[in-house]
Amino acid sequence: MASIGTRTKRVEGFEMVTGSMRYTEDLQMPGMLHARLLVSPYPKAKIVRIDTHAALAVPGVVAVVTSADLARLGKDARALLADSQTSYTGEPAAVLVAESEAAAVDGIDVLRAAAEFDALPAVLSIDEALREGAPLVRESIETEDGEAAAHATITVEEHKAEKPSNIANRVDFTRGDAAAGLQKADVVVRRTYTTSRIHQGYIEPQATVATVDPATGDLTIYTATQGQFYVRRETARILGLSEPQVKVVPMRVGGGFGGKGMIFQPLVGALTMMFRRPVRLILTRMEDFLTTEPGPASRTELELGATHDGNLVALRVKMIYESGCRPGSPLGITGLMMGGYYRFPNMSIEIMEVLTNKPTVGAYRAPGAVQGTFVIESAMSELAAKLGVDPIAFRLRHCVNPGDLMPNGRPWPKMGIRKVLEAMDAHPVRRRPKRPGEGEGVAIGGWPGGLESAAACIRANTDGTFQVLMGAVDISGTATTMGLIASEILGVDPSKVKVITVDSSQAPYAGFAGGSKITYTVGTAARLAAEDARRQILSIAASHLEARVEDLEVAEGHVQVKGTPTVRLSLAEIAQMSMRFGAKYPPVFGVGSTTMTQQSPGFAGHLVRARVDRDTGQVKITDHVVVQDVGFAINPAAVEGQMIGAAVQGIGWGLFEQMTYDEGGGLVTGTFADYALPRASHAPRVDAVIVEVPSDDGPFGAKGVGEPPVVAAAAAIANAVSDAAGTRLTALPISPERVVQAIRKGG
Amino acid sequence: MASIGTRTKRVEGFEMVTGSMRYTEDLQMPGMLHARLLVSPYPKAKIVRIDTHAALAVPGVVAVVTSADLARLGKDARALLADSQTSYTGEPAAVLVAESEAAAVDGIDVLRAAAEFDALPAVLSIDEALREGAPLVRESIETEDGEAAAHATITVEEHKAEKPSNIANRVDFTRGDAAAGLQKADVVVRRTYTTSRIHQGYIEPQATVATVDPATGDLTIYTATQGQFYVRRETARILGLSEPQVKVVPMRVGGGFGGKGMIFQPLVGALTMMFRRPVRLILTRMEDFLTTEPGPASRTELELGATHDGNLVALRVKMIYESGCRPGSPLGITGLMMGGYYRFPNMSIEIMEVLTNKPTVGAYRAPGAVQGTFVIESAMSELAAKLGVDPIAFRLRHCVNPGDLMPNGRPWPKMGIRKVLEAMDAHPVRRRPKRPGEGEGVAIGGWPGGLESAAACIRANTDGTFQVLMGAVDISGTATTMGLIASEILGVDPSKVKVITVDSSQAPYAGFAGGSKITYTVGTAARLAAEDARRQILSIAASHLEARVEDLEVAEGHVQVKGTPTVRLSLAEIAQMSMRFGAKYPPVFGVGSTTMTQQSPGFAGHLVRARVDRDTGQVKITDHVVVQDVGFAINPAAVEGQMIGAAVQGIGWGLFEQMTYDEGGGLVTGTFADYALPRASHAPRVDAVIVEVPSDDGPFGAKGVGEPPVVAAAAAIANAVSDAAGTRLTALPISPERVVQAIRKGG
Repeated sequence: MASIGTRTKRVEGFEMVTGSMRYTEDLQMPGMLHARLLVSPYPKAKIVRIDTHAALAVPGVVAVVTSADLARLGKDARALLADSQTSYTGEPAAVLVAESEAAAVDGIDVLRAAAEFDALPAVLSIDEALREGAPLVRESIETEDGEAAAHATITVEEHKAEKPSNIANRVDFTRGDAAAGLQKADVVVRRTYTTSRIHQGYIEPQATVATVDPATGDLTIYTATQGQFYVRRETARILGLSEPQVKVVPMRVGGGFGGKGMIFQPLVGALTMMFRRPVRLILTRMEDFLTTEPGPASRTELELGATHDGNLVALRVKMIYESGCRPGSPLGITGLMMGGYYRFPNMSIEIMEVLTNKPTVGAYRAPGAVQGTFVIESAMSELAAKLGVDPIAFRLRHCVNPGDLMPNGRPWPKMGIRKVLEAMDAHPVRRRPKRPGEGEGVAIGGWPGGLESAAACIRANTDGTFQVLMGAVDISGTATTMGLIASEILGVDPSKVKVITVDSSQAPYAGFAGGSKITYTVGTAARLAAEDARRQILSIAASHLEARVEDLEVAEGHVQVKGTPTVRLSLAEIAQMSMRFGAKYPPVFGVGSTTMTQQSPGFAGHLVRARVDRDTGQVKITDHVVVQDVGFAINPAAVEGQMIGAAVQGIGWGLFEQMTYDEGGGLVTGTFADYALPRASHAPRVDAVIVEVPSDDGPFGAKGVGEPPVVAAAAAIANAVSDAAGTRLTALPISPERVVQAIRKGG
Repeated sequence: MASIGTRTKRVEGFEMVTGSMRYTEDLQMPGMLHARLLVSPYPKAKIVRIDTHAALAVPGVVAVVTSADLARLGKDARALLADSQTSYTGEPAAVLVAESEAAAVDGIDVLRAAAEFDALPAVLSIDEALREGAPLVRESIETEDGEAAAHATITVEEHKAEKPSNIANRVDFTRGDAAAGLQKADVVVRRTYTTSRIHQGYIEPQATVATVDPATGDLTIYTATQGQFYVRRETARILGLSEPQVKVVPMRVGGGFGGKGMIFQPLVGALTMMFRRPVRLILTRMEDFLTTEPGPASRTELELGATHDGNLVALRVKMIYESGCRPGSPLGITGLMMGGYYRFPNMSIEIMEVLTNKPTVGAYRAPGAVQGTFVIESAMSELAAKLGVDPIAFRLRHCVNPGDLMPNGRPWPKMGIRKVLEAMDAHPVRRRPKRPGEGEGVAIGGWPGGLESAAACIRANTDGTFQVLMGAVDISGTATTMGLIASEILGVDPSKVKVITVDSSQAPYAGFAGGSKITYTVGTAARLAAEDARRQILSIAASHLEARVEDLEVAEGHVQVKGTPTVRLSLAEIAQMSMRFGAKYPPVFGVGSTTMTQQSPGFAGHLVRARVDRDTGQVKITDHVVVQDVGFAINPAAVEGQMIGAAVQGIGWGLFEQMTYDEGGGLVTGTFADYALPRASHAPRVDAVIVEVPSDDGPFGAKGVGEPPVVAAAAAIANAVSDAAGTRLTALPISPERVVQAIRKGG
């Protein structure tokens, strides 16, 4: 019997690889209506007229719903569709419902032809947004808490723009005197870096089916979400219902990466309430690219200076995020990470977000950390090269230690940046001579780690099995992890523990599955619940065996007297004694409810070798090592899966992915034929190296592992390509055109 | 804001009275198969041949499954259908599944015509069963724990028959010397009483839909059951699955009365596993009467003696239950109640059950107590009349007090028999002169009260509402009661609390909804859970308001400082502080897990006036008063509903209901046209009088209230009819024929 620390298959693996997993799209409901969206064809437009007559004449079309129709559900519901004006290409202006998917598709084609939008002057780039006299994307700008910021639980001072402009938010982090510091520098890197708007690229599109109880009006929403409580709270608020009136059933998520929060769930709920029938909305790939919330593009001007002898003297950064039509870029985390890995004596970091007529941005795995780390780690490698020192040695010299201050003035808690750098340095790839044309790049990146309160329950069953109840969605194998935690503490084989993700009506609370916090927070709740259940089990056994609790041990599904293993009770017997007619003992029902107040930052470093075809600009990754401090690997297989997946996702960030718009603000990359996700053939064999600097608070020392490994991947690739090309690449993705241009221009 | 003690509408009332409640029969599943039963046409038969060819040729018929087909799921599954021989008319010998209900009906007609059963000598009555050389109903008799016995949690010594016979079980309760006592008696009542086999008469027939997960093989069973954990455990055992592999979703029960335990759930589960498609089995009314588990018939010989001055001297009883083809009659409870209400100095109670070729008996509201109470309360009233004393005064003189011994030698706990008798005596009907031809009858009856371990959870929501999670099925308004308990403790309006009955995979454990124990046991768990949640809420408020917990109070959805109500936090704010990103406090999640070890017996008395038409034998109830000690009425409306419903159900017991078999063992009363449930026109206006002798352990002093009011109803009716007819009626139901016969014969 082995539990934690053992490479364990994900419990849902069989279903996933055999294609038998049921997703939201597979749900069939009697009488279900099918919805399709009428979206704006222009980045900014006046809705002149939506003539529904012809569409309603299409067989099977039931209704066309506009903002005005939603108004009877209240002001917030009304805002679920654009009213008189749209703010981005793809913004939904109406929704058509029909008896079948086919009728809905036919109907929406007819409706589109009969809808009249007048294009208005739009803002489509950072420069346009900042131009004096530029059209305002929003008339009034209110700060909104983006999910991204919420994921990392940081406090930063945010400055509001003084006069109406397209600048939505700005944060500054200052230490010492950056200008004076730079004047003392002997060597300075001065660069402008850009990153692209990129999509989470989940394979399953956004999917929701909602039903309504005909008698009570209560809603049930089946949806692919990373957070059923979040969807419940917001849907209830928007539709004017109480939280118990909305049940959100979290379906299996076919890829999330931060993008499966809440998109159209309240809209589908509203339609269900209006028509009193089940309604389904499964986005097409094009609709998904047009209407959902990708990660923001950025442009950064950087100056990083050092003395001849390699002392860092100052960092000065001005970064601008392009946030689309509402604020939401992860300004705070970006600054904390960019300025946080190294001991800069002087620092000035200014980050702002500007609005453009594009979809709102949202969370994408390690929001902000990827963009900020690309900037600082590109600069650090370039500076090391200018100084003629090894890039890992340079980082080891300057990296922070626990207790050093972050840009916000708070001390870093215990973390493993140094151990990760040392493990990277020790890797055999470092000592293998470069092949001809091969470049090497390194980068390190961190993630502060999410904090959230969480509860979990563990129930004994009368056959000696257990069930773990949790309110967290499993997007990355966390259910398997919870099972390992519980089985370790309960002393049973993991096959005896089943973990269930419970809907929002019945689950113990847990937060959004994002920010690398489920294992850390819900895992702690599961640990506490298992310990509670174990205490109850031992107490029953002690009473029944007339022994003291201290004299008992749990082994192989039994509680036995230490040293006298024949005096024992099976866990099934104990459960039965607590759950039956006339039971002498209360039911074994363990609960853990906790809140984590100390973050456990996670660091991961990448060591990449790459070759560049100097004629075509093609990049080939020849080696990819990812080293991560995970605190403790409860399920090493799952941890390595996160590391390897992140490395490949980093190839997307680094070499391929970008959402591209034409001059009229139309999305060019609205299919997976145009939006270039990395494919299996692009993925090198990734060597995942686990480092363990135990967390004080996480279960068995574990930290969150989802975000950290993606943070520095693109930066390391950029450093490797720059090394191979002999010139600095400063724009993501590093497309072949950019490589060729950079080589021609020289750097 | 009023909670406990306030007359409160049942939360599901609107759905029930508008017909919008969804029952198991309303479930539609894509690809669902429909099952119908092929049943034995004889009470005992050899299954010669089930020729399936013709049935399989019926369009839409998918398969015919026999015991042999089930064998691949194991020995216990095999026994779900009769193998070579059947033991009662209606015993399922095969099940046919088809694509539609219509095809299943067509198919089963064809199958029935092609099935060959050879009738074997059967045993159809108590006398036949006891006849020397009678055929044995079962070759080997093993004692089985019937649900009925389990409901009341009693311990009695059961004697096994020494040699093979149709006597399955026997219990004796002895005190002093009954024979000697009777010799000292001046006045003796000697009677033989009979009661009939009667059906629970629920309106919704037994209904189950099962589905299987195609990948994991896990079962989900949607079913009208009073106990999802019971169905889960047994289904898992029979089908060789672990408990987490079986999820039982308790659907709304359209009438249970003890009869909605587990009948065909494992069979439907087996079919679903075999065909890998959803399967539905909704019994027809005839199938339901033929195959389910009614309450047993009984025959009792009684001698009850007193001295001239009214001292009770001895009770001697020999009672026989007719249990059908398996043991299961409630011998123990019958004896405890029959011999337990009065202080008999000498007592001999012998109760046995015999087997006959009829369906097994099961639990029916207050199993055994109704039959036993009919006997003892008929005799007590007759004895009082012989002695010329008032029947209530006579009962008050002899009734037990707390601490007096029950027939099993254990002391009666705190209970309210005397208060109930006094309240009956004080009722205005007692002082109203009898109208011409009117008779009056009184009777009292008790129920020991069920004990079981239970857990419940209470969750705060971020909008200030709460959800109570319980594993108990609500068959009688208990969800409304749990909501009142929680809202009282949490200091919120009941509309802010939603109670959810959770499926077997996710629910905190609770027992079968039967035996009058849900409010007593799960209500206590809910109370503890609410107190736990309240403590957490106050702790958060104290920390945030910088106050001491003792200085805080909960009022109108807020926690406030006593005397300074402006310093306060709403429950929504407190919940939000415990459930969000970076929350400072753990989620408010209250748990109560408990086991009740002290019974709280409930007593109810009936005072009935009735007129008899001496020519036709028709009985007309003119007054019906029911007085019950409920400990504390958490929801008086629900309590009165139980009392009034029980009075009317008592009319069924008393005047109308009996399952009748023809000489060949065929059921004559297989429809509601033949099986005479009382109708609205038969129901008098019932005056329900609540008495409250608080329970020490139940929530707010409450006791279980479901069983007690039905116990003595038929006895009181029999006493009233006997008084009106001027002759003793000793057989239930008191049909017009029996009344006329008794009047002609004289008594």
